[in-house]
Amino acid sequence: MNLTEAIETRRSIKHYNPEHVMPAQDLAELIRLTKLAPSSFNMQNYRLLVIRDPELRQQIRAAAWDQAQVTDASVLFILCADLNAHNEDASTYWSHAPQEVNELMASMIKPFYEGKDQLIRDEGMRSSALAGMTLMLAAKELGYDSCPMIGFDSEAVAKLINLPDNYALSFMLPVGKQAQPAWDRGARLSDEIVVTFDRF
Amino acid sequence: MNLTEAIETRRSIKHYNPEHVMPAQDLAELIRLTKLAPSSFNMQNYRLLVIRDPELRQQIRAAAWDQAQVTDASVLFILCADLNAHNEDASTYWSHAPQEVNELMASMIKPFYEGKDQLIRDEGMRSSALAGMTLMLAAKELGYDSCPMIGFDSEAVAKLINLPDNYALSFMLPVGKQAQPAWDRGARLSDEIVVTFDRF
Repeated sequence: MNLTEAIETRRSIKHYNPEHVMPAQDLAELIRLTKLAPSSFNMQNYRLLVIRDPELRQQIRAAAWDQAQVTDASVLFILCADLNAHNEDASTYWSHAPQEVNELMASMIKPFYEGKDQLIRDEGMRSSALAGMTLMLAAKELGYDSCPMIGFDSEAVAKLINLPDNYALSFMLPVGKQAQPAWDRGARLSDEIVVTFDRF
Repeated sequence: MNLTEAIETRRSIKHYNPEHVMPAQDLAELIRLTKLAPSSFNMQNYRLLVIRDPELRQQIRAAAWDQAQVTDASVLFILCADLNAHNEDASTYWSHAPQEVNELMASMIKPFYEGKDQLIRDEGMRSSALAGMTLMLAAKELGYDSCPMIGFDSEAVAKLINLPDNYALSFMLPVGKQAQPAWDRGARLSDEIVVTFDRF
C-alpha cells in the first residue's frame, strides 16, 4: 500500500469480525515493522503486550466502558513503557556499534535521565506512541484496521495484566478485520490553530 | 512510496544539504498528512512549530549540543502539546458530528482530564508523537529525511520559541535533504524483551 493512502485511509475502527484469527506470520510482520520505529538513544523503551486470551479480553472490556473492539478485534495490543530502560547497560542498545560509540552512549544515557521522573515518563509516552503509530500504519499494509484507545480504567487494566511497577501503561490498540466502516472522519482544526511559524 | 519501504528506509539522518529550501507545497502536504494522525477524543492537542529563521535556528543549535541537523535541515519542526485542549468547547473538535454526539463528547472530555495533570501531560506526549511519527513517514514519501531529537536544553529552547505556559515541548524534528547516509541501523532488542503475551 502507498504511504499516503495508508495515512489517508487509517481510521479508528470500532467494529471488528470477532471470528477472525490473525495468522502468526501477520503478527510477526506487525511486530517486525513496529520495532523499526525510532527511540531516543535507541533505548527501545516501549513494550508490546499482545492479548489473545478471550477471558482476559472480556475482563479488560468490562474495564473499558464495554467497548466492543476490545474483545472483537483479532488481537489486542497494550502499548507500555519500561521506565528503567535508561538504567540498562548501554551495550544492550548499541551492540551493533564500535566500542568507542558504546562508551560514549554509556556516558550519556544514564545522566540524561537519572532522577528526572517526568522526563523518563515523557520518554515512555513518546516511544510507545511512535511505535504505536508505526503499528497502526503497518496494520493497514497487511489489511487490518486498528483503534487507539485511552478510554479505560487504567488501574484496573494494570492489575489484570500484572503491569510491573517499573512499567507505565500508555494506550490500548485493538487490531483486526473491519466489520463496519468508521463514522465520517473528524473535522481537522485549521492550520491557524495547529501550525505556528518561528515563535509562539 | 510503499508503506513497508517507508518504515524500513526511515532513518535518523544527521547531515543535510543546508542549501535546500523546502517548497511551500511540500510543507503544506507534510502538514496535511500529519493532521490525519489520530488523537484522543479528536482533540488534536499537538501543535507544530515550523522554524525557518536562520538566526533562531543557530540559537537553538547552540542549545542542542551543537548538532548540525538543527540548522542544516530544510525545516525544523518542534512538536508541542496544548495542555488546555480538553478545556475547549467540544464542538471545536466535533463540528462534523450531529448535535447529540457533540453533547456526548462535551460530557466526556473535560471530566476525563480535569485535575489529572499527569494524564494531561501523557496525552500531550502521546498525541505529539503520533503526529510526529506520521510526519517522519510522510517526509519519506516526499523525498525527505528526518531526525527526531530530545537532546537539547528544553528550558533554553522553550525561552527561544516563547513557549506558552500551557504548552509542553515534546521533541524536535529537523526535516530535509540527506547529505550523508545514516550509520548502520541500531540493533533491535529481541522479541523476548519487547513482546509479552497476555500478562506480564
